[in-house]
Amino acid sequence: MRFRKWGIALSNNFAKKVRIFDTTLRDGEQTPGVALTPEQKLKIAKKLDELGVNAIEAGFAAATKGEFEAVKMIAKENLRAEIFSFARGTKEDIDAVIESGASSVFLVIPSSETHIKYKLKKTQDQILELAEECIQYAKDHGLKVEFGAEDATRSETSFLKELIARSVDAGADIVAPCDTVGILTPESAYAFFSDLIKDFPNIAFSVHCHDDFGMAVANSIAALRAGAQEVHVTINGIGERAGNAALEEVAVALKLLYGVDTSINLDKLYEASLLVSRLTGVLVQPNKAIVGENAFTHESGIHAHAVLNNPLTYEPIPPELVGRTRRLVVGKHAGSKGIKAVLNEMGIYPDEEQLKKIFSRVKMLGDKGKKVTDTDLEAIAETVMNMPRHRPFKLKELTVVTGNRVTPTASVKLDVKGETVVGAATGVGPVDAAINAVRNAVQMVEPIRLDEYHVKSISGGTDAIVEVMVRLSKVDRTTTALGIHEDIVMASVEAMLSGINYLLTRFGKENFSYEHA
Amino acid sequence: MRFRKWGIALSNNFAKKVRIFDTTLRDGEQTPGVALTPEQKLKIAKKLDELGVNAIEAGFAAATKGEFEAVKMIAKENLRAEIFSFARGTKEDIDAVIESGASSVFLVIPSSETHIKYKLKKTQDQILELAEECIQYAKDHGLKVEFGAEDATRSETSFLKELIARSVDAGADIVAPCDTVGILTPESAYAFFSDLIKDFPNIAFSVHCHDDFGMAVANSIAALRAGAQEVHVTINGIGERAGNAALEEVAVALKLLYGVDTSINLDKLYEASLLVSRLTGVLVQPNKAIVGENAFTHESGIHAHAVLNNPLTYEPIPPELVGRTRRLVVGKHAGSKGIKAVLNEMGIYPDEEQLKKIFSRVKMLGDKGKKVTDTDLEAIAETVMNMPRHRPFKLKELTVVTGNRVTPTASVKLDVKGETVVGAATGVGPVDAAINAVRNAVQMVEPIRLDEYHVKSISGGTDAIVEVMVRLSKVDRTTTALGIHEDIVMASVEAMLSGINYLLTRFGKENFSYEHA
Repeated sequence: MRFRKWGIALSNNFAKKVRIFDTTLRDGEQTPGVALTPEQKLKIAKKLDELGVNAIEAGFAAATKGEFEAVKMIAKENLRAEIFSFARGTKEDIDAVIESGASSVFLVIPSSETHIKYKLKKTQDQILELAEECIQYAKDHGLKVEFGAEDATRSETSFLKELIARSVDAGADIVAPCDTVGILTPESAYAFFSDLIKDFPNIAFSVHCHDDFGMAVANSIAALRAGAQEVHVTINGIGERAGNAALEEVAVALKLLYGVDTSINLDKLYEASLLVSRLTGVLVQPNKAIVGENAFTHESGIHAHAVLNNPLTYEPIPPELVGRTRRLVVGKHAGSKGIKAVLNEMGIYPDEEQLKKIFSRVKMLGDKGKKVTDTDLEAIAETVMNMPRHRPFKLKELTVVTGNRVTPTASVKLDVKGETVVGAATGVGPVDAAINAVRNAVQMVEPIRLDEYHVKSISGGTDAIVEVMVRLSKVDRTTTALGIHEDIVMASVEAMLSGINYLLTRFGKENFSYEHA
Repeated sequence: MRFRKWGIALSNNFAKKVRIFDTTLRDGEQTPGVALTPEQKLKIAKKLDELGVNAIEAGFAAATKGEFEAVKMIAKENLRAEIFSFARGTKEDIDAVIESGASSVFLVIPSSETHIKYKLKKTQDQILELAEECIQYAKDHGLKVEFGAEDATRSETSFLKELIARSVDAGADIVAPCDTVGILTPESAYAFFSDLIKDFPNIAFSVHCHDDFGMAVANSIAALRAGAQEVHVTINGIGERAGNAALEEVAVALKLLYGVDTSINLDKLYEASLLVSRLTGVLVQPNKAIVGENAFTHESGIHAHAVLNNPLTYEPIPPELVGRTRRLVVGKHAGSKGIKAVLNEMGIYPDEEQLKKIFSRVKMLGDKGKKVTDTDLEAIAETVMNMPRHRPFKLKELTVVTGNRVTPTASVKLDVKGETVVGAATGVGPVDAAINAVRNAVQMVEPIRLDEYHVKSISGGTDAIVEVMVRLSKVDRTTTALGIHEDIVMASVEAMLSGINYLLTRFGKENFSYEHA
């Protein structure tokens, strides 16, 4: 491994095979505002199985009818991964797991004074008995039991150890002393797990970290280094409050920084991230490791140039390893060599003098606080180089009708090299209808996919300027384009057409023409 | 400190005073797609100064005219923080810093073979000379010099140490061996810095980490534990690729987990985060530690209930410490006690039987994949409790026509206590027209002012859910209301009507009536 040269200060006691326990569908779904249907959960479970996780916590069977249904559907699917349901320390919760058909239960009972006193209003002795009873009951009914000690990292050490001993005597197969509020550090995680493993050398431990201080990934890995055999993770690190340890970060760091293999197919990480983000509605920030939009994007001039010479200069992770591709973008920090590379990719070859002019206009736009998209760069190059403007699609007419008693409907008339193309469509609102109408008109020429649609937050009045960004693709080519207008419908249509014109002229059929239908 | 009970496996050599070096305006602004104007940079710099950072890297003076202007404006502002500009190892870059009036330069020269060979195409000896010359030149012109060894963590140890020795001999005041591509781990960061500090006990070191593997915060803290005296951070962790170590996470973890004070006023963290997110356009994901929307939100039933009993159960960080407030939301995981608390806050007091019914309806909505907002909960409670619905204004009909060749026009028909009120208006787009039509209809009853209109950024597709917030006022009364719909026009009208209904029923004429015009 090329990144391990600085050695490791503490010894590494990684398990031979680190198990990945995914809780996207349980702890992840407890993200405020997230609610998945059983069908959506099944879709994510299948993706997790493809990804290669060892265990899937499918939900909390006793919580609602839908949750029960989801666990049942996923358990029936015969996935490779082991299927867990969450349960608290009650017979009803465990019964729901048994009925759901899940093979395994993640049974959670608090171990800290705060939780025992303020949440359960019980004594420590009652907790010991409760854990014992629940585990025995679950085992008697054929369940595999992972016992979770909630808030373990804030518990009295002697009581926690007693609870662990009793739970294993009662039949628990694996024990997760949870860092429920995310207060471990890498050092304390290592010390905590080392201490437990020393006292219980024959027990398999699992680590469950939350990200309240931004250290869930480092803490999880520290516990694995101490010898924990399993790690709880979620896709995109979603979960309550600041979320859980992110599956993608843990798996990639283990592989590249520690040389520890897991069963995860890393090249499927990005598609899993996109699916979870889409179905849960929880956005991934652009500067998120591995799966963020910018994780493999290079703008800054010096960097883009160096990456073109040798990707290793600024890429610790080969993008294809995690199912991604490198992206170069221009911007005010771009150097002239980076701009030249992007232009060349568009099939535009400026000479030195022209490149200088293009370069200085890009900088000027940046200083004004403007983003420079691919289409902006193209327009600048066309002007500087006096190139014919390739705008095959021009908007002639757009009409949209919408309201609460009318299906939002749009018609669009485009001029395509002198020919008129017409499209019409409905949508959930005027923007959706207008964009659908444009796509309807354009697809007669060539199919374009709208991959992403972003509107920057609008502030001020209802007549404020709206900034719409779209990402479009056509087979393997992608572009982003911007539309700016005080009318969100017009801004969206402008962005769409500008991107379509770019894709079709730069990467389209040499001389496409519109055939009357 | 209540979280330190597990002790620390390695010794802590924290500096007496850890310095916070903020690079939001330089490395942060190198985020692809971000471009700030000098005025915006100044605004952020002032906020950083209020926040209490020790140093502000204001930009890269030699990069563009705007960058130069920004550094100059910020340097002139007489902030408490020390003002840095970035420079590469060229006379031109350093001259720009001198001219800008910044007191200090962050001078970066590569130290790794990959960077020296593929980026600069130089030999190691040339690098040593270059560093020496540049540092001397900067010092001769009165600059304080922080010397950054780029890609230091992938450099040959012996060469790196030689470079550091030469840089200090030449006058460098502090040295930052940068983890340019984020490949440190907490253990290797600790070992790396311990080794350097052992060899150079009299040199002040700074740590600069990137988040490619999700460990920038843990790595930064590990370096500080080893004795580094300064840490490079950005607000919200923005920066190239996966970004830099997040200021808010480093500062709060140092304080609460390690008992190390910094000069940061923690209660200003949230407003700084909001400002940077708004001006850069880089979203913060909801599950982001400290500043994410959900970091202090509790939905899940058991949790919300416990938090009501004792916030410590699920809150490692008191929200007010970092300028935030606790938020309880309902959802499919919500317990009945959490729902009751939210309803009581609205002034609604259901009995046990009613609460049970409300509870089961909330669960049903959740199983269907629906978010449950406060207004949804209010509506459910009103139905179950058979409360009179205070909705004097009801939308009967809304029609909007828009397009590129038609003036956006809307008509609206409202039911006001059985009477029909009609309004019509034009606008710059369909939203503006619809809102104007509503105001036109309503003002016949009572004049309502629209003070603010805000749309949360929309991500996903053109059919994504849109969240509109309006602030309305009527003489001296103000309210905010939310509209959520997949159609931005409908979301806007809903928000508007819900706010109007609230203002008119709570603060309106006791029994207002509509007079025919």
